Amino acid sequence: MKATDYIVQFLVDRGVDRVFGLTGGAVVHLFESAAQNPGMMPVFCHHEQAAAFAAQAYARVRNAPGAAFVTTGPGTTNAITGAAAAWLDSIPCIYISGQTRLAHTTRNKPIRQLGVQQLDVIRLVQSITKYAVMIDDARTIRYHLEKAFHLATTGRPGPVWIDLPLDFQWAAIEPDMLAAFDPMELPSAPEEGSILADVRRCAELLSEARRPLVLAGYGVRLAHAEQELLQLVESAGVPFLASWNASDMIPTTHALNVGRPGVFGQRGANLAIQNCDLLIAIGSHLCVSITGTLFEAFARDAKIVMVDADRDELAQRTVRVDLPIASDARRFLVEMLSARQGQRRLDVEPWRDRCTYYARRHNAVPAEWHEQSNLVNPYVLMDVLSDELASGDKVVVDGGGTVNQIAFQSLRTGAGQRLLIAAGMCAMGSGLPESVGAACAGGGRTVCLSGDGSMQLNIHELQTIVHHRLPVKIFVLNNDGYLSIRITQNGFLDRHHVGSSAEGGMSLPDLLKVAAAYGLPTERVSHHQHLRDAIRRTLAADGPALCEVMVARDQDVAPRQAFERKPDGTFTPRPLEDMDPLLDDDEFLKCMVVRPWKNSPSRLAALAARQPVG
Amino acid sequence: MKATDYIVQFLVDRGVDRVFGLTGGAVVHLFESAAQNPGMMPVFCHHEQAAAFAAQAYARVRNAPGAAFVTTGPGTTNAITGAAAAWLDSIPCIYISGQTRLAHTTRNKPIRQLGVQQLDVIRLVQSITKYAVMIDDARTIRYHLEKAFHLATTGRPGPVWIDLPLDFQWAAIEPDMLAAFDPMELPSAPEEGSILADVRRCAELLSEARRPLVLAGYGVRLAHAEQELLQLVESAGVPFLASWNASDMIPTTHALNVGRPGVFGQRGANLAIQNCDLLIAIGSHLCVSITGTLFEAFARDAKIVMVDADRDELAQRTVRVDLPIASDARRFLVEMLSARQGQRRLDVEPWRDRCTYYARRHNAVPAEWHEQSNLVNPYVLMDVLSDELASGDKVVVDGGGTVNQIAFQSLRTGAGQRLLIAAGMCAMGSGLPESVGAACAGGGRTVCLSGDGSMQLNIHELQTIVHHRLPVKIFVLNNDGYLSIRITQNGFLDRHHVGSSAEGGMSLPDLLKVAAAYGLPTERVSHHQHLRDAIRRTLAADGPALCEVMVARDQDVAPRQAFERKPDGTFTPRPLEDMDPLLDDDEFLKCMVVRPWKNSPSRLAALAARQPVG
Repeated sequence: MKATDYIVQFLVDRGVDRVFGLTGGAVVHLFESAAQNPGMMPVFCHHEQAAAFAAQAYARVRNAPGAAFVTTGPGTTNAITGAAAAWLDSIPCIYISGQTRLAHTTRNKPIRQLGVQQLDVIRLVQSITKYAVMIDDARTIRYHLEKAFHLATTGRPGPVWIDLPLDFQWAAIEPDMLAAFDPMELPSAPEEGSILADVRRCAELLSEARRPLVLAGYGVRLAHAEQELLQLVESAGVPFLASWNASDMIPTTHALNVGRPGVFGQRGANLAIQNCDLLIAIGSHLCVSITGTLFEAFARDAKIVMVDADRDELAQRTVRVDLPIASDARRFLVEMLSARQGQRRLDVEPWRDRCTYYARRHNAVPAEWHEQSNLVNPYVLMDVLSDELASGDKVVVDGGGTVNQIAFQSLRTGAGQRLLIAAGMCAMGSGLPESVGAACAGGGRTVCLSGDGSMQLNIHELQTIVHHRLPVKIFVLNNDGYLSIRITQNGFLDRHHVGSSAEGGMSLPDLLKVAAAYGLPTERVSHHQHLRDAIRRTLAADGPALCEVMVARDQDVAPRQAFERKPDGTFTPRPLEDMDPLLDDDEFLKCMVVRPWKNSPSRLAALAARQPVG
Repeated sequence: MKATDYIVQFLVDRGVDRVFGLTGGAVVHLFESAAQNPGMMPVFCHHEQAAAFAAQAYARVRNAPGAAFVTTGPGTTNAITGAAAAWLDSIPCIYISGQTRLAHTTRNKPIRQLGVQQLDVIRLVQSITKYAVMIDDARTIRYHLEKAFHLATTGRPGPVWIDLPLDFQWAAIEPDMLAAFDPMELPSAPEEGSILADVRRCAELLSEARRPLVLAGYGVRLAHAEQELLQLVESAGVPFLASWNASDMIPTTHALNVGRPGVFGQRGANLAIQNCDLLIAIGSHLCVSITGTLFEAFARDAKIVMVDADRDELAQRTVRVDLPIASDARRFLVEMLSARQGQRRLDVEPWRDRCTYYARRHNAVPAEWHEQSNLVNPYVLMDVLSDELASGDKVVVDGGGTVNQIAFQSLRTGAGQRLLIAAGMCAMGSGLPESVGAACAGGGRTVCLSGDGSMQLNIHELQTIVHHRLPVKIFVLNNDGYLSIRITQNGFLDRHHVGSSAEGGMSLPDLLKVAAAYGLPTERVSHHQHLRDAIRRTLAADGPALCEVMVARDQDVAPRQAFERKPDGTFTPRPLEDMDPLLDDDEFLKCMVVRPWKNSPSRLAALAARQPVG
């Protein structure tokens, strides 16, 4: 059996039916085997970066491993951004790179290169993978594949990398003669021990709390514990939040859903955190995107329970954690449900009401924003788009610019819908290739939300989408460059838009012309009165379609973390939200008003002028 | 003084007047300082990969350091391909990445991420840089900059990387108070010692040789020893070859120039190597691209002298080296000239004649190929383009596909012209961003040679070119996909064109439509009769222009290294060229005949059927 046939069958046997990549001299055998295997279909992108992103988006949709094949040298380095995205978000992915023949590698040699396009791949990727190995003996292929797959999918998941020299691609192997991997040989994890005592303590804290809150992270989905999460929050009647990656597990409109917190989160969600007295974070590593940078101010009045499968995360916290629980989200939730068995819904009606109020008042897009008469308010785009989404739709959000901030502040997801972003990496240009991966994972339509600046980085993936007629509906916010950077520059650099606008040395092409050149049907919408129809047409198109949405170039994003400039020129952050639950509501609303069609008085200055309470 | 102002001035003081990049949240301060400094101009690309390539192309043209600024996380990972290209080809480049504030980095913490978009940059890039450091104290900025610059530009040059947390970007520093770097603190290199004895021995070998040959590598240019090289070969009358990166140092038409050897080199050059009795390799590390994979067959009858600044390269050879000399190319050449002072031109007229014959007969494009009546023979394109180039022109060749093989087999360079490629990496898509860098380095026109497949990877750089109206003249070989891969698949995989053609699942857009959408003037040429005029129009265009050159989809590349399939399914290489200098010339010619407009009887089979002599 040809070694690459074995490898492809290994993946097929584990449910992988698409492999992404771009062919190349050192990887043709892998793709040939993929094309020959009836259970596998290779999907060819136009850049390995795109393939690496597509593989992990496919994995997100399936909640199962994704795979990409890339060639040596530039094939590998091009794939690093996508692999790092999988690493940061704990996505199980198998990346296999073709390598020059073993004899032409620099392994163990202190030189830069030997073979054609050869590069020491393992040293490059080992810091962003759970396992990275170059095969140096065809008889170890099964062992390394099994070990890699095991590590990718167990504990805290993540990407793995196998570098496969050409001579082991065309090698003939006897599958029955290959050594297997035994998970027992791994250094044993620290004694798992019982989490029962911790769970009991957590259940007590929950019973005693007046203002309890659950924060669900992506670890819940990775542990396939979505149902258990729902069961816990519903049976206890505890309001909950979700991180960006986890926010599609329970519909936005669920009565207990208070939204998505964070630096660019929803005001209602942040207010809930700042005013709860118990925060149970399950499968979220509470990174700076969630906590903001004033760690001591985060959940200022709450006891914090943190449940994480990764003990290192528990040990390295920036915010205080009162009760760390080293556990897989599923195990914890099962035990919590068991500990609470027979207990009633918590008697915290005022807090539930308050959370409902937060969500309605501060997460929803204000009705008056719909009245904007010129250009499209992107919050309104998200609002209307939410209405038009169907069950099974997957919304992929690009990592760049304001689009993800605005999407996660205002897009609503319903039952059976997915909202996908490589949130840890948050790479400009990730949206288009991730849409390729999401669309190839099957299911309904894929909606891609991107910005005009981000579209350029992987613009070639329009061709992949057109080639396969993938049902990808692309909505691009055209805000005339890099709005997110301009907002930063407004705050930190006296509104000098260096590199973020045409005046600052960076311009963009006419996207509709470019998209049409790739063969996509396109349209452009500039007014709210045409918005819903444009969305419907784009969603209903047969195959892919692109709709450019014209947005004010000074569209503000609110809320976001504010900084204060000190006399010495340095900057200090301010709390994510004002922390007084009794703060006058009109004050909040004032901060939320976004007037995108002209320069509003700097919202930053307004925030800076306000005194935090307490 | 703001730290980023200091950093930019540091670069300006060392002759860097352009910095490439893409702005982002963690790098706005660096770009603001770059824009404010009258001696610096930031050039904004549309992907950090492009910026990283542009920086090292700028460095190649200037033969002085290039620089790029990128943001954290994806900004860094996106730049790795370009940085690795600089690493493999020993190009001095300074890459500076913005990082989250120091307190939000994962340094020394066993977790994957802490700050927003944060990633441990140094672990990612340390294997492809001479120096990689994260600044953790504003007072060390001068020290690390000086050390990085020193390392990038001394010994064997290469890229360096500085990761700069945000707090040290806006920090106020007192330049006079900053500690300096002293090169003496570096671990001392192994005793340099005198190379005089080795040089004398080399000079003796040269005097005794009947068929001597010099092979110049890029180390000659890096050591600024182009004149000394010319002086040596001319005074001794010794035929010479040059690696791809070095092949523009002495005009193609120089009487002693026998061309560019290698796996995809010129037949004449390979024949010269295979039949010389002394090979003096200066500043070339004799990688597999040059030697082919049958190491014992390389320069089969020659004593080999290898001069390299990198002792590790000398110690790790695949081919036998009779006289290794650890020396900078310049030092060696100066000593050789001195050792040969007063000596006459070598009395090796028959060998010089033979080499002249090799070059004329086997490097030049056969006249009859001009007679092809349908589509353009890409060798003829190179031939005609060579006629039309002017002094000062820089030709950038993409790393992908057949275009570089064909360009280096047939493009001629004259005095004052440059021929540029990131040869070690040979990355698809490098040509367009390298053209940006080359054009920004000043001088004459930039000609970009690329293929239709490669164009997609950095297609967005058309916008950078249009924005700055860079005089980049782009010629794209349209061979309907990835011809280079199809050739490999023809040889190894029974002509299954998986991922390299539309039938195989990979198609390309109409490039003229895409280029026009970006605003470039375009034209397409399909016949030799219109070729010269099309080339002239494109070269003469005011600003950028693109010419698509229609090539047969089964255009062969000849010569190239052939492989033989063994009964067990594995492959073995064949010698780069037949090694008998007396082999009948008609036999050679037969192998060179390329019939691009239809499937020729497999040239591989023809080669495989021939018995090597001896």
